[in-house]
Parts: sequence; structure tokens; C-alpha cells
Amino acid sequence: MSQRLRLLSATLGLLAVGAFSAEPADDIKPPSGYRQWFHVNTMIVDKGSPLFAELGGMHNVYVNSTGLAALKKGGPYPDKSTFVTDLHEFTVSDGSYVEGARKALAIMVKDAKKYASTGGWGFQLWEGGDANKPLVTDAAKQCFACHQPKKDQDYVYSTYIP
Amino acid sequence: MSQRLRLLSATLGLLAVGAFSAEPADDIKPPSGYRQWFHVNTMIVDKGSPLFAELGGMHNVYVNSTGLAALKKGGPYPDKSTFVTDLHEFTVSDGSYVEGARKALAIMVKDAKKYASTGGWGFQLWEGGDANKPLVTDAAKQCFACHQPKKDQDYVYSTYIP
Repeated sequence: MSQRLRLLSATLGLLAVGAFSAEPADDIKPPSGYRQWFHVNTMIVDKGSPLFAELGGMHNVYVNSTGLAALKKGGPYPDKSTFVTDLHEFTVSDGSYVEGARKALAIMVKDAKKYASTGGWGFQLWEGGDANKPLVTDAAKQCFACHQPKKDQDYVYSTYIP
Repeated sequence: MSQRLRLLSATLGLLAVGAFSAEPADDIKPPSGYRQWFHVNTMIVDKGSPLFAELGGMHNVYVNSTGLAALKKGGPYPDKSTFVTDLHEFTVSDGSYVEGARKALAIMVKDAKKYASTGGWGFQLWEGGDANKPLVTDAAKQCFACHQPKKDQDYVYSTYIP
């Protein structure tokens, strides 16, 4: 988990710089309909985390139908398999953590040939989920470097929870 | 939210007594395929909550396709609309809250005529999601009493988060 957090931190750290000029490394767009995809799991990064400033929020992870069977097996994933992390704000009231508005949207999309240099996965992250605000410019460094240890799960951190 | 928590507490309190002899008030069964339904939202009840003992966990809420359009409008819901709360354990590591195994499964299913005395909704909760372990014996008292204040949303606490 800590490695996944480092990965996301490296990426989401860009959110903090604000005026960063985005030059996306590829043509990945936010997928339509991801809110209807299979809900893989949820993780909350709270203020107790050293990564809270960059990474705080409720991480709702979804996978498209192409990737679902592979998720259940723990990989490998066929081309067009797609994961999103739908990152939301949250509020805490009386010990209850309640979901708020979208903070960012992150994606992993499989194309073994196109993204061969990053394990067959393309990566992108949009501030607020806004297609006009992509923040990943170097997927190898910002994303894949931290996914690499999960090679035995085809570079995916999430596992299937029945 | 606090009212929703009281509702769930009243229901989940039964989990604590353990040896409670279950006599379900109706014939509601755990729905198949709910893990594929639309993910409405997630809430975590942490140890900072006074309800943690009965209610602690990650609450993943799903709605079936029949109820989704109504959720987006804030109700009212047509018959056969169904919500589940898929309650999971979680672990906390370095400020990150990570989803674990299923703790219980709760349901609301709409049938305006059959469940007229409880706002048109039938309720049930199964320990561990096990169809053989239903814990609701008096839905009016254990469930509906706390949903009643949400009459303007057809007794549903969850709202649509895009």
C-alpha cells in the first residue's frame, strides 16, 4: 500500500503546485460512464497520513467490464482494461467519514503495444476530473515507477474484494 | 447523518448480542449481483464515533438499476428499487483506511403496497451477508423509525454524488 501511496503522491503532488503547465504525454481522455463501472474498493487517506496534503481524500476505485474478469483472477489484463480512481473530498463528523465532491480522477488503461515502456499501461490524472486539466506529463516517472513492484498482478495494486 | 447512524445502530446493535434468535418479519433475501450495482457512495464509521462498537466499518452503498434514475432526482422510488449497504471491515495503516472483508449486508427494497406500514420499503440485514443470518425482526422499530425524517427523499438517506 505504501508504494501505491507514493505513486499517487508523486502524481497528485502536481495538484499542489497549481500553476503547472500540463503537456500530456499521450491522448488519454477521461472515460465516459466510469461512475457506472464495477466498484473495486474504497480507500481513505486521512490527515493522519504523511501524504494527506497531496493525497488526502476518499479513493473510489472502479474497473470497466473489460478488466473485471482479470481483476477477479489477479491479472493479467487484456487490452482496453481500464481502472479509474475517483478521488473525492470527505468530511469527518463524530467519527464518521462522509463522501464529498470530486477532487481528481486518475486512470490506468491497458494497451500492451502502445504503452510497452510502462508495463502496457497508459496513465493520466485530471484535476477535478476536468478533461482540460491533465497533470501527468511523464507517466514512467510519475506513475509506472511505483507500479513496477506489482508486476505479479500486472502492475495493478487493487485486488478483488467479493 | 446522525439519524442514519442511529437507524443502523439500532439494527446493527443486534450483531452485538450474537445469540439473538432471528425471526425475519418477511421474505426478503439477499439480492444477487449487488456487487455489480451502481456505487452510490461510501462512508466510514471509525473508532472516533460513539457508534463504532455496533456500526464500525466501511459502508459501501449500492442501488439497482430500477432505483438509479430516482436516486438522481432525489426520489420518489418505483417498486423494486433496491439499496444495499455492503458493510466491510477496514484496517488503518499510516493514516490510510483500507477495505477488508464483509461484516454485514443491509437492504431496503421498495414495494409500496406490501410495505405500506414502513413507508413502502422492506428492510433486512444479514450478518456477514449470510442469507441464513437475518437480524431484523421488527422493521418498523429497527429500521423505519429512523428513516421517517427523510420522507422528502422517499425515506432514503443517500443522495446522488456525480
